[in-house]
Amino acid sequence: MDGAISPARESGAVGRLLDLAAADLAAVDEVIAGRMQSKVPLIPALAEHLIGAGGKRLRPLLTVATARMCGVSSDHHVKLAAAVEFIHTATLLHDDVVDGSELRRGRVAANLIWGAPPSVLVGDYLFARAFGLMVETRNLKALDVLARAASVIAEGEVLQLTRSNDLALDQATYLEIITAKTAELFAAAAEGGGIAAEASDTETEALRRFGLNFGLAFQVIDDVLDYGGVSETLGKNVGDDFREGKVTLPLAVAMERGGAEELGFWTRVVTERRQDESDFVRARELMRRTGALEHAMETARGFAREAEAALAGFPNSVWREALLALPAFAVARAA
Amino acid sequence: MDGAISPARESGAVGRLLDLAAADLAAVDEVIAGRMQSKVPLIPALAEHLIGAGGKRLRPLLTVATARMCGVSSDHHVKLAAAVEFIHTATLLHDDVVDGSELRRGRVAANLIWGAPPSVLVGDYLFARAFGLMVETRNLKALDVLARAASVIAEGEVLQLTRSNDLALDQATYLEIITAKTAELFAAAAEGGGIAAEASDTETEALRRFGLNFGLAFQVIDDVLDYGGVSETLGKNVGDDFREGKVTLPLAVAMERGGAEELGFWTRVVTERRQDESDFVRARELMRRTGALEHAMETARGFAREAEAALAGFPNSVWREALLALPAFAVARAA
Repeated sequence: MDGAISPARESGAVGRLLDLAAADLAAVDEVIAGRMQSKVPLIPALAEHLIGAGGKRLRPLLTVATARMCGVSSDHHVKLAAAVEFIHTATLLHDDVVDGSELRRGRVAANLIWGAPPSVLVGDYLFARAFGLMVETRNLKALDVLARAASVIAEGEVLQLTRSNDLALDQATYLEIITAKTAELFAAAAEGGGIAAEASDTETEALRRFGLNFGLAFQVIDDVLDYGGVSETLGKNVGDDFREGKVTLPLAVAMERGGAEELGFWTRVVTERRQDESDFVRARELMRRTGALEHAMETARGFAREAEAALAGFPNSVWREALLALPAFAVARAA
Repeated sequence: MDGAISPARESGAVGRLLDLAAADLAAVDEVIAGRMQSKVPLIPALAEHLIGAGGKRLRPLLTVATARMCGVSSDHHVKLAAAVEFIHTATLLHDDVVDGSELRRGRVAANLIWGAPPSVLVGDYLFARAFGLMVETRNLKALDVLARAASVIAEGEVLQLTRSNDLALDQATYLEIITAKTAELFAAAAEGGGIAAEASDTETEALRRFGLNFGLAFQVIDDVLDYGGVSETLGKNVGDDFREGKVTLPLAVAMERGGAEELGFWTRVVTERRQDESDFVRARELMRRTGALEHAMETARGFAREAEAALAGFPNSVWREALLALPAFAVARAA
């Protein structure tokens, strides 16, 4: 869900955006560092473990960049961007508890170090702090968008949970899940930037469409990378989804296109989760043979094009240029 | 943390308030039932299991009653009361995961039926829905109070967790914990009612003081009941705190007042959590002998008096009368 981007590629679109947004992002980091404090030492310790591990701050970057593109004149986008990152961090903490994850952003997951209970509670704390930050902006429209996003994300996580290890999960349901659990926050982050800049409804809707489609492309690529990348680049173990029996787009397509003789294989490794070392290699082989990975890439490219199209109505600027390059860059990660 | 009140006693102060507030509470229940829905069936199923089990709706009752006492003219108090109950429910779900609880409101705890992951995620969903409801009232002051409460609660839970099975936990730290994890939401619930009614700052501060002290009395009594009540009345097992090695006021006082020869006993049952059937009886005996339970009762009475005093400045009304009777009623539960 949060494959970090390789430093070697940061010179690309993200690098350009990070340069442009450097001052704003430093301000965001300062807000984050300040608001994750507490007189209970375990809270900043656990939060810092995850937040300090980096990650690309992609979601707050969206908020900052869309706000700048729309000519923001207050510092509300900084607080909203920090709130977005807090919601994301809270989700990651709870996700890792739910999945029993072992690795996150290249570090041992917090739930393995401190146990599940503090991860649950510190997630709650960060979530509450996110709303506190939003309240400070006194922007009810932004609050509405982010409160809605938070409930959609939780809904998507529950849907994913109820359909885990379920071979009957089809492409439509997969898209429903990633729309809710990933793309919705990208959408809210981009829309929130526009709202902070007091952009028109037409503009904030376009920004929402940009964020949503970029988020979809990002997640599909993340799921492809789980079958095609290398551990060092990803910051999480390749094959995690496979080992958990998680049905993502590559697997759903390979299943649909595979013959009856492969059904036994998929049932054993996904539904029954009985796997040995060679199964992951076989799964990748089946994905290549059925064109499942290429189909997923093409799906991601489609979302990337939708995202780019959503920015058509904005006047040209360095911010628009940099944002425009983002979706294709995300797709290129897995090419 | 949420000992339900015995039906036999509902004819007391809570019963009077429940009668007065019947129409408002029906409206609150309707909002709750509507907003816990989702197209993902597990969400309403799990939420209904907990919310449908009843509980006294004490916190939303506070919001409704304080709002009415202050002459509310909108229906904002209904939405805020529902939001307060959602925050409380989310906290209970996460609490039960953290504690590995087996019983809640007389029912098998949700985490035992569906597992911890859905309890975490449905808690998140309800938390997000709470903020959605608050945003609908467009009342930034109420949003601020409840966002703050949510972060204080999480902080209190983490503090409690880091001090679990810790014999060195003194009365001051115990009070710090219950102020954060319980009394803060009572305070915010009461203050929120005043805010919904556009009461003056002096009034909302007094309401906050009322809620805070009532909440403290309520929690101290709950902790006393864990050593003195009977399972049927409590809706949770007597002796839960003891079995978990949780240091509450009765235990902290019994420890402080006990002799050196009892330290071995407390260390074994609390720190090492090595207990047999007779240990709970011995612990109660030590509490009676040291006057620990009576000391805790007196502490609760002190908070109850503070709560009553906080309502001194409000003109008399049926609402004020009913609210005034509430703290003493809470204390009487354990008398």
